[in-house]
Parts: sequence; C-alpha cells; structure tokens
Amino acid sequence: MPENAQQSQGVYVEPGQEYHRDTNYIETRIARDGRDGYPVEPGRYRLVVARACPWANRAVIVRRLLGLEDAISMGICGPTHDERSWTFDLDPGGKDPILGIERLQEAFFRRIPDYQRGITVPAIVDVPSGAVVTNDFAQITLDLSTQWTEFHRDGAPDLYPENLRDQIDEVAAVVFTEVNNGVYRCGFAGSQESYDRAFDQLFARLDWLSDRLANQRYLVGDTITEADVRLFTTLARFDAVYYGHFKCNRSKLSEMPVLWAYARDLFQTPGFGDTTDFDQIKKHYYIVHSDINPTQIVPKGPDLSGWLTAHHREQLGGRPFGDGTAPPPPPDGELVPAANSALAWR
Amino acid sequence: MPENAQQSQGVYVEPGQEYHRDTNYIETRIARDGRDGYPVEPGRYRLVVARACPWANRAVIVRRLLGLEDAISMGICGPTHDERSWTFDLDPGGKDPILGIERLQEAFFRRIPDYQRGITVPAIVDVPSGAVVTNDFAQITLDLSTQWTEFHRDGAPDLYPENLRDQIDEVAAVVFTEVNNGVYRCGFAGSQESYDRAFDQLFARLDWLSDRLANQRYLVGDTITEADVRLFTTLARFDAVYYGHFKCNRSKLSEMPVLWAYARDLFQTPGFGDTTDFDQIKKHYYIVHSDINPTQIVPKGPDLSGWLTAHHREQLGGRPFGDGTAPPPPPDGELVPAANSALAWR
Repeated sequence: MPENAQQSQGVYVEPGQEYHRDTNYIETRIARDGRDGYPVEPGRYRLVVARACPWANRAVIVRRLLGLEDAISMGICGPTHDERSWTFDLDPGGKDPILGIERLQEAFFRRIPDYQRGITVPAIVDVPSGAVVTNDFAQITLDLSTQWTEFHRDGAPDLYPENLRDQIDEVAAVVFTEVNNGVYRCGFAGSQESYDRAFDQLFARLDWLSDRLANQRYLVGDTITEADVRLFTTLARFDAVYYGHFKCNRSKLSEMPVLWAYARDLFQTPGFGDTTDFDQIKKHYYIVHSDINPTQIVPKGPDLSGWLTAHHREQLGGRPFGDGTAPPPPPDGELVPAANSALAWR
Repeated sequence: MPENAQQSQGVYVEPGQEYHRDTNYIETRIARDGRDGYPVEPGRYRLVVARACPWANRAVIVRRLLGLEDAISMGICGPTHDERSWTFDLDPGGKDPILGIERLQEAFFRRIPDYQRGITVPAIVDVPSGAVVTNDFAQITLDLSTQWTEFHRDGAPDLYPENLRDQIDEVAAVVFTEVNNGVYRCGFAGSQESYDRAFDQLFARLDWLSDRLANQRYLVGDTITEADVRLFTTLARFDAVYYGHFKCNRSKLSEMPVLWAYARDLFQTPGFGDTTDFDQIKKHYYIVHSDINPTQIVPKGPDLSGWLTAHHREQLGGRPFGDGTAPPPPPDGELVPAANSALAWR
C-alpha cells in the first residue's frame, strides 16, 4: 500500500517477503442509478488526491480530460504524510477548505469508525456527511467516464469506449501487475529473489509495451483511453523516482526510445504534464519511505528538461481526443507551479 | 571513510552533518632510498585491494600499466566487509594464500597493535613481518610510478612525468574534493543542505571536466597520466552505483557525452576495463552501506553494454602510453570474470 498512510511509520518492506499490495478498498460506487446509495450529483462530492500519488494522478487526469471540475471539486493533500494519514498541510491553516478536516483519516472514520485499512488517495468524500464514499482507485476513473457523462464538458473524449473495453481491461491488467505495481514490487521487495523476479517482469513488460507502441500512437486504438492514463502516471515517475529509489534501473525511461516518445507525447497533451508535479512526487517517495531511504534526503536530479522536447509521435497519426477536443487550461486553483514542473529544468 | 571497515556496522551518515573523510593514513613510504625503513625490493611486498573500491582500483590499474605484477604480488579481498575488516573471503579457506590471514585488520594490528583508524584498501603489506607498511592510497600509486622504476616492464608508460606533475597535482586536487570524494559527500550527506551543496559542486566540476576534455584526449597532456587513473575509477562506478545509491542523479555518465566517451576510451584501454568488476562494485556499495540501503538488495541494472561501444576519441590524437606500449593481458589469477564485467550485458 504505497499511498497508504496507515502503514507503520515508514515501514514498507517486509524482510524476506515479496511485496503484496492490500487491494481491499471501500468499493461503494457513485452511480447514475444510485445503486449503492450515492447517486451522481454535481456539487455533492469532493475528490481528494495527492499530486505525488500515481493512483490519484489518474483521477486528476481523467477529471480534467472530461471537464468535471465544476461537478466534482478537488482537495489536494501534501506530498508527505505521517503514519496516520494523508494531510491537508498545503491548505491555509492545514485544513481542507470544504471538508474542514486536517487529515483524510477523519473522513474515513466518519464512514467506518474503526477503519483499519489504508488511508489512501484517491478518495471521494460525500461533502454533506463528510464521509468517504470510495477509495477504489481503479473503479473511480471508470465511473468518472461512464456514470458522470451528463456532466462531461462539450468535447470530452470517451476514455472507456464500449467497443474497446475488453482490450483496455486486458492491457490494463498486465500493466497493473507488472508495471504500475511492478515498480513497487521492485522497490519494496524484502528479498533479492523477489526483487530480481519483479525487475525481470517489469522490464520484459516495458519491452513488450515498446513493441506494441512502436507503430501505434496509443495503447488501444488510435485515441487516448483509460489504458494510456494508467500507464502514463507510472512512466511519469519512472526516472524521477522508480529508477533510483525503487532500483528499477536496467534503463531510464529516457533510454527506452519508443516509451519515452510515447510518454512525452502524453505529457505534452493537456491534462497530463500539467497535472504532474515532479517536486511533490520526489518529496513523497523519498521522505515517506524512510525504510528504504532513511536519510529522507530528496535527490536534486534528474534533469527533466527532456520532457518538453519534440516526440514526433504525431507522425503515427491518431486522434488524441477522438471526436472530442483538448481540455482548456486547468482552473487557477489547480495549477502545478512552474517550479515543480519540468519547466524548472529549462 | 567509505572503504573503512572499522566503521560501526553500516553507519556512514551522521544526521545533520556533512560527510568528512578521515584522511589519516599510515604514511610510511616504500622508497628506493629506504628512508622510512622499507626499501623497494621485489617479492617483498603484497598489495592488498578490493576490486570494488575506487581507491584500490587506482593501484590495481597503475600496477598493471607499469607491469609490476612480478615485483609486487596482489591479494584481493571480497566486495563486502563486516564492521571489523575487509576479509579474504574470496580465497580458498577464506585466507590470503601469502599472508595467511583472514582479515586485513590482522596486518594492521601487526604494525600498530591498538590501531584505531579505518582498515582500508589499498594497503601494502610487508610479507616477512606480515605488517601493513602503508594504506596512504594517494601516495601508493605515485610511489609505484616513481620509486619502482627499476622493476617497471619494458614499455611501461610514465604516469607521473616530472614536467607535468604540477598540472597533474592541480587537477587531481579538485577532482578529489568534488568528484572522487564528491560522490561520497552526496551519498553520505546527513542533511539536505549538505547534499544539495555537494551535488551542485559535483556536477559543476563534471561540466568543467567535459569542457576540458572536449578537444583533448586526456586530462593532462596527450598521454594517460595518474590524473586519468584517478578520475576513471570514479566514472566507472558512476552509473552502476553513484547515480542511484549516492543520489548523484542530475545525469548519468552515459548522458554526459564527452565524459562518457572519455571514460569508454579508457575502459577499452588495457588496464582499465579489464580491472573493473561491476558485480563486486555493486555488491560492495549496496550491501555494506546498510544505513542508506537497509534492504541490502543489489540492483540488477544498469545495462552496461554501452561501455563496449565505439568512442571515437582516437580522432583527437594523443598517444595513450606515450613512448611506451600497452600492457599484456592480466595474469590468469587476476582476471575479472566475464560475468562480472560489461560483457555480461552483451
């Protein structure tokens, strides 16, 4: 549970063991038909994220691509958290201005008083009751795509088209195990053997993805889908964190030409790079995982200016947003500071 | 004292502090005139090294370039050591076959019974008495060049020519502080501020070295000198260890084109790459420094095959060995296994 703040302070590695992610989440769904008691309703819910977290970053991207900013507000936790919870330490007074709480944990307790599992982001909170509705990150983005259609902006892309769902689910499943979670399986391995195995699977899968993307602009079909969002948030963190901190160091992303061009293409697409905060990403991993980085010193590198260079992927054709259009710039309160972005390395 | 095995087990970082290297060594010199009681005498001394250690690697390279294998034998400690000493764990029975000891510490104690400082490599041991003569790494290589001339092979290069000594000393001094030791000042920094400072100095100096080497094949003059040996052993470890483990991650060596070509040129020169054991290098740093890598897991990467690619530095002219010649291949007992070398990545 990388983004699980109920971890004993800074303890992520279990000696001698493989890393296993606790995948038990609050699985309540916010649905059009209100099947779980939480109907789609604009203004009612608050998406709580941390920019550092790749799972939360998915929801940030999807909400922005779909233009759901007005329908679902967003609270942003700081990059580091203590053993108890992600906290709203970036907000004035250290409190989320809408929820009025300091720790995301409070919203979990309001839903389940003796909640024992991880306090994770992304989480969606029901503002009237102050209780977490769901922290099931994989379902959250799909539901933003499929349940909130009435409130999508004009020109919102279809990130989970019905005719491609099987393909998207299939590639997302292997990418989850071997890439999204694979980097954690390297970094939190408790034995050399489990690390070696995770490393080999990770790079075999990245090579497979390179082959798949060599002549095809996006992972499934010729437009951006949920599958690309899910791969992107891991690739965006690869050189900044996973290569060194998690020992995913056969090659940097920037040394895998197809994936690097693919990642830059997305990064330079509205919704992706403009939601990526490298400063918070580095601080999160290097400070929170004190059992693999006891000094908690945050590296100054790597040089990130390469993210802004030409990728030439448009030569492969494709229509990034399909029949839709790119989203407008993020609202003022949701801008990533230039100093935290790839621009800082220019 | 990175290669100091009397460090409290695995403790290298002092919280809140800069890293300071203890530079007090046993400074007795083996000299032609026997001024310190240890005259130059073939067959009398044993150079004790660990292939992992950059300071010892210097002596391995110089001994080989000068063809001193028959005059000075070599004992090789394993890549890891415990809190007490470097050990001869690679040798049959775990004992150095000539000195008959398990731990280098014993040879230090035979010289100074209550020796309190670091048990470091390289060290030169007087075989008849079994006592360490010197572990003053910076002087050791210079004395191999200047005191042992009578026993140099035919065609041995002059690595410390009289007319270039000022220049060599000058560049070696800044390279020591900001590069050779600079990477340790990054990796063992006890505060973010001291890390940031060391990082900036390191990369500023590497950029300066890139400029210096852009149109000049070697650091001083147009032949290999002691200055190149000293820079090489740090560059050889850069991507394998310092980039990730020590957070020297603005750029990989392989992303600094001039330095990368310069390092490959030397690597492919007899005496350099054939004394570099990447497997032992990675094991040493990642296992011994358990305070910055508590899991002691050794990364599988990086891909090292690039070391064997064309460097094109011969276009700059230069005469690698001056009026001398390249050394012959290493003797059988001193070969680095192919599996531990860049060849393993081909």
